[in-house]
This record gives sequence, structure tokens and C-alpha cells, in this order.
Amino acid sequence: MPVGTQATVKGVTAAQLRETTATLPDVTAQMILGNTYHLALRPGHELIRKMGGLHQFMNWDGPILTDSGGFQVFSLSKLNKIDERSAVFHSHIDGRKIDLTPEYSVEIQESLGSDIAMVLDHVIALPASDEAVIDATERSVRWAVRSLNAATRSDQARFAIVQGGLNETIRAQCARDLAAHPFDGFAIGGLSVGEPPPEMYRIVKATCPHLPEDKPRYLMGVGRPIDMLEAIAEGVDLFDCVMPTRNGRNAFAFTDEGPLKLRNAIHKDDPRPLEDSCPCPACQHSRAYLRHLFVTGEMLGPILLTIHNLTYYQRLMHQAREAILAGTFLELLERHRALAAPKEM
Amino acid sequence: MPVGTQATVKGVTAAQLRETTATLPDVTAQMILGNTYHLALRPGHELIRKMGGLHQFMNWDGPILTDSGGFQVFSLSKLNKIDERSAVFHSHIDGRKIDLTPEYSVEIQESLGSDIAMVLDHVIALPASDEAVIDATERSVRWAVRSLNAATRSDQARFAIVQGGLNETIRAQCARDLAAHPFDGFAIGGLSVGEPPPEMYRIVKATCPHLPEDKPRYLMGVGRPIDMLEAIAEGVDLFDCVMPTRNGRNAFAFTDEGPLKLRNAIHKDDPRPLEDSCPCPACQHSRAYLRHLFVTGEMLGPILLTIHNLTYYQRLMHQAREAILAGTFLELLERHRALAAPKEM
Ligand SMILES: [Zn+2]
Ligand SMILES: [Zn+2]
Repeated sequence: MPVGTQATVKGVTAAQLRETTATLPDVTAQMILGNTYHLALRPGHELIRKMGGLHQFMNWDGPILTDSGGFQVFSLSKLNKIDERSAVFHSHIDGRKIDLTPEYSVEIQESLGSDIAMVLDHVIALPASDEAVIDATERSVRWAVRSLNAATRSDQARFAIVQGGLNETIRAQCARDLAAHPFDGFAIGGLSVGEPPPEMYRIVKATCPHLPEDKPRYLMGVGRPIDMLEAIAEGVDLFDCVMPTRNGRNAFAFTDEGPLKLRNAIHKDDPRPLEDSCPCPACQHSRAYLRHLFVTGEMLGPILLTIHNLTYYQRLMHQAREAILAGTFLELLERHRALAAPKEM
Repeated sequence: MPVGTQATVKGVTAAQLRETTATLPDVTAQMILGNTYHLALRPGHELIRKMGGLHQFMNWDGPILTDSGGFQVFSLSKLNKIDERSAVFHSHIDGRKIDLTPEYSVEIQESLGSDIAMVLDHVIALPASDEAVIDATERSVRWAVRSLNAATRSDQARFAIVQGGLNETIRAQCARDLAAHPFDGFAIGGLSVGEPPPEMYRIVKATCPHLPEDKPRYLMGVGRPIDMLEAIAEGVDLFDCVMPTRNGRNAFAFTDEGPLKLRNAIHKDDPRPLEDSCPCPACQHSRAYLRHLFVTGEMLGPILLTIHNLTYYQRLMHQAREAILAGTFLELLERHRALAAPKEM
């Protein structure tokens, strides 16, 4: 799921985004993520509602998932006060004070008109004491239930978010508590925030068995190709990550042979595309040309690498689905483990 | 003719560029301009030749015209010395000394493999004395003939460039001198460098009658929509200009109702597209959305406005051709004169 923070997946048009899955027969609708926090500040959810909702505003007819704003409130804004009722914070844009209750997050997301709304959760910085983690996790569960009760749109799905830091017991308890309520899907939040990958895998492994088999599972903010495959092995279905877009803007291309840094002089006169098998517009060009674009500071460099990386991620997810159906997923995983082993990104 | 200085029309992919003329039945091949000076410095014409030429390097199968490097040598670089033999200058990138003869400009452009090569000319800053203008103009004619004699590729057309400052007599003489040689087309250079538009029209009007009827005429570096239409009225066929792309990056959109500045708060909640009749991807969105992209500094803003402006220019040229065939060109010109009159851009 590409990230479209401010009602745009950075650097690509809606048509280009659709094309990243054009050759994948199993993808009929590609979901993107919109950031509630950013959109509520600029241009404002009321304006977006007035413009016909986020789909119409950004001209995206595929599904859209909106986060709750919780993660950005705790990471970007000047957090003022958090209590059982709400998180009070100051906008990082203009300092304006905002009182974000779980109910208000629902209201904003209903104005945006996304297909999937996430519940507001209480995200805390790690490491933290078990006591602090339990406190925030139990509040997150209560907020999730309040969100469920506040929802009024029947055309919007609602996903809960499992918290619990790096503690398996707290995670499992949170998953069971949330699974008792009629959410449409379950996310695993609070990971991919700097912990070593094996820690993340451990928590995903400890959490998934406590989530319903028949509802989608979404690992938030993850991640590298290998991280996604490891999580798929544990039963995760859905991911969002800025890596394909952010890395693309920084001249970093994902390939099945490992990453390529396009600013590197080694590509100076390399006539090969990034990947022979990739159908994307970047791979209509040589590595030499892509390097030239970054060396000269041309916008087309970030644009083309963003498109390639999004295409790479979509193709990887397609490969994973095909491999699961064919019973060869473990081979795919082992191949990527070998690829990731020598040098962690 | 969109400008692709560094082997890319800034911000758009080859596919997006092709789409700017997709709805125009009379456009079967869209030409773009590549800058010899920039490409010779980075990545180097030898590298581009090795990569199969500029068409293959930038994946553009339409026609490409390359300029001679003259204009950039005189405007961007540290010019060291100019005499009958060559212009000696220092690269604005790394200070490297380059000895640019007319023959070397031909060699570079043959390495690039463009479809149309421009001759090296001696561009001087205006205002200048008639004596200085005549000196540079006569040298430009001698250089043009040297370029013709140096050319070896039969698959590359060669255009001469009429110089002569703002002096009609010198311009006419230069045009006649060049027309005596078997060039494939004739450009009018050294205009659109800050002179008032009526001065430019005056020189175009004084030059065109002295150029062959059956060869294309190309007005270099022009311009605004009204400038192009005024020049077409005098018999010009071809233009290159950075305005659609540069203005697009600066949130400035061309429309048949006059220009729109997308950063302006007036567009904040305007649900209308830039132009109802425009088939481009930008016009799939509201002005409110486009403004949001510029306010939040998203790359998609410059991308979409660049595409819209290129589409606008292509459609305007299409309208001009249709109007000429229908005998209504003067009405089109008058409409744009009225549009341009109240506030010059
Ligand atoms: Zn690719
Ligand atoms: Zn348009």
C-alpha cells in the first residue's frame, strides 16, 4: 500500500500509480494510505468533504485507507497533554491547538470518506516500562471501542490497532481484547520504529495467532522487502511503507539482485535497465540515463525511481501471493533472506 | 517544441510527453529540443553516442532538435575568447576549458544523433553598436557555411540561424546570405532576450520575407502564446520555449481565459478544473487540489501543471493550424491579442 500522505503519492500521477500494477493479473484495486493528521491540517477535512471526499479530491478510484492521526500526533506535533479523553497537541504547521478524541478522529475520517478508517491509538516511545506500555495499550483498547461506537458510516470499514511495545504477553492480551469486538480488520502498530528486525518478527509472530483468521491483518509502517516477506510468513496481509517512494527520491532502487544506488559512478555508462524483467517506465531507460538524471538534479530521476520501486513492491507482493498458492513461498522467503543477509539496508 | 535541456523535459516522462498531443489528430510526431552545451558537459556527448544516441538515451522516438551550444556559451559560461576560429570558454560546471569551433559543434551534435542540428552562431548582448552587430552577424554566416561543410551525417537536417540584433537591414541581409546555401531550415535567433514584444515582432516581420518559402522557419526561445501567434502571422512554423515547463513548476497555468496562479487563495475551494475542455491529467483535478499540492510543496503540483501547460501549448498550435486551414486565423489572433492586452505576463 503506497503512502499518499498529503493526498498524493509523492511524485506520481494517479495514472502512473495505476500502471505500477498494470501487468499483475491479481490486482484489480490498489489501495493507498492517506494521512489523517496531515490532511486535517492542510487543506482541512471539511474542505475535502466539500470537494466530494478524498477519492474525488485526489482523483483516486481505488480503495483508500486513512490512519487515525495518532502516530503523527505523537511523533510530529508538540504534544501538550494526553488523558483518557483525548490527546491535545499543537499543529507542527501553525501551532494551532487541537483536541483529538477517538470520536473526532472518526469524524475526520468520515469526512475524508476513506474506505478503511483506523482507530486512534495511544502510541508511546520505546523503550518504556511494562507499566507504561500496559497503560497505553489498555487505553488504546478503550479508545478503539469508543471509535467503533462513534462510527456512523456504513460504507467505511474500521480497523483496530494492536499495541503492546516489544512485550509478547501484552501484545497477545491486546490482540485478544480487540478481537472480541466487531472490527473489520486488525493492525499491528508501534513497530518499525527503530527496533532490530528480529524483535519486530518476534512480536508479529506472538500477535498473529490471537487475531481472527478471517479478517485482514495489517502491519503498519513496514517495511523492507525481507520484513514484509517475514511478516507474510506469520500471516500478515497488508503493509504500508514510505520506503519505495522515499528511497526512490534518494536515488535508491530495489531489485531482485539487491539494491542499487543510482548516484554511484559504477552506473556511469551501464546500458542495462534496473531490472530486465520490470515493465515500468524507468526500466525503459539505461542505468546510465537514470544516474545522469540524479547527477544533474532533474526531477525525472526521483519520479522514475519512485515508479520503479512501487512497481517492485507490487510485483513482490504478487510473487508472494503466487508462491503461497503454488506452495513455494518458503523458497521465495529463503531467496530474500539470502539477499538481505550480507548487508542490511 | 518542449525544451529538454538535460535529456529530459523537466518533470515529465516520455509517455506523459507523448500524451500532451494524444488528442490532436494532426500531430504524428512531436519534436523536443536538447541542449548541446548541457549534454556535452554532462553526461558528455561521447557517452550518449556510446549509449546509442540521444533518442535511445532518453527513450524518445519522436524528432529531436539540438541547438549549437552558442547561446549557452555566451550566457552561462565564462567566455574566455572569441575569434574567427572558435569560442573558447570555461564550463559553468567544473571550469574545464573548451574550444568550441563550428566544426566541433557539428561533431557533438552528430554524436548526439539529433534529427535537426543547429549551426554555431555568434550571439552578442544587446544593445550593441551596428558595427558590433554586423561583425557578429557576418561571422555567424561564415560559421554557418563552415558547419554545412563539416557535416557528415546524411540523416541529420541542418538549420542556419539569422542574427542581426534589432536592425532590420542587417537581419534582411543575413537572411539573404544564409538562404543562398542549402540549409534544411532557417531559424531566427537572438530574440526574446528582454526586448519589448513589438520590437521582436518588427524583426520577425522584417526577416521572414527573405527566407525561402518552402523551408521551415524557427523562432528560437519564443515565447508567450501571443508571441507565437504574432510570429505565425508572419510565417514562422516552429518554436521552442521553456515557459510551459518553467511556469508550470512555478504554479502558473496557461488557459484560454488567461493565466491562473495556483498559489492564490482564490482557488482554495474551487472545484473547477483549470480548463473544462482540456484532456490533460491535471484537468482531472480541481483547482483546489492543485493549489493544495503547491501549498504543501508536493512534487505532483509542478508535474501536473507542467503537463497542463505543455498540453495547452500543443493545443494552441493545433488551433492555429486549424484556423489557418479554415481561414479564421486572424480571429484567433485577435482573441489572444485581447487576452494579452490588459496585463502583460
Ligand atoms: Zn522498473
Ligand atoms: Zn489541462
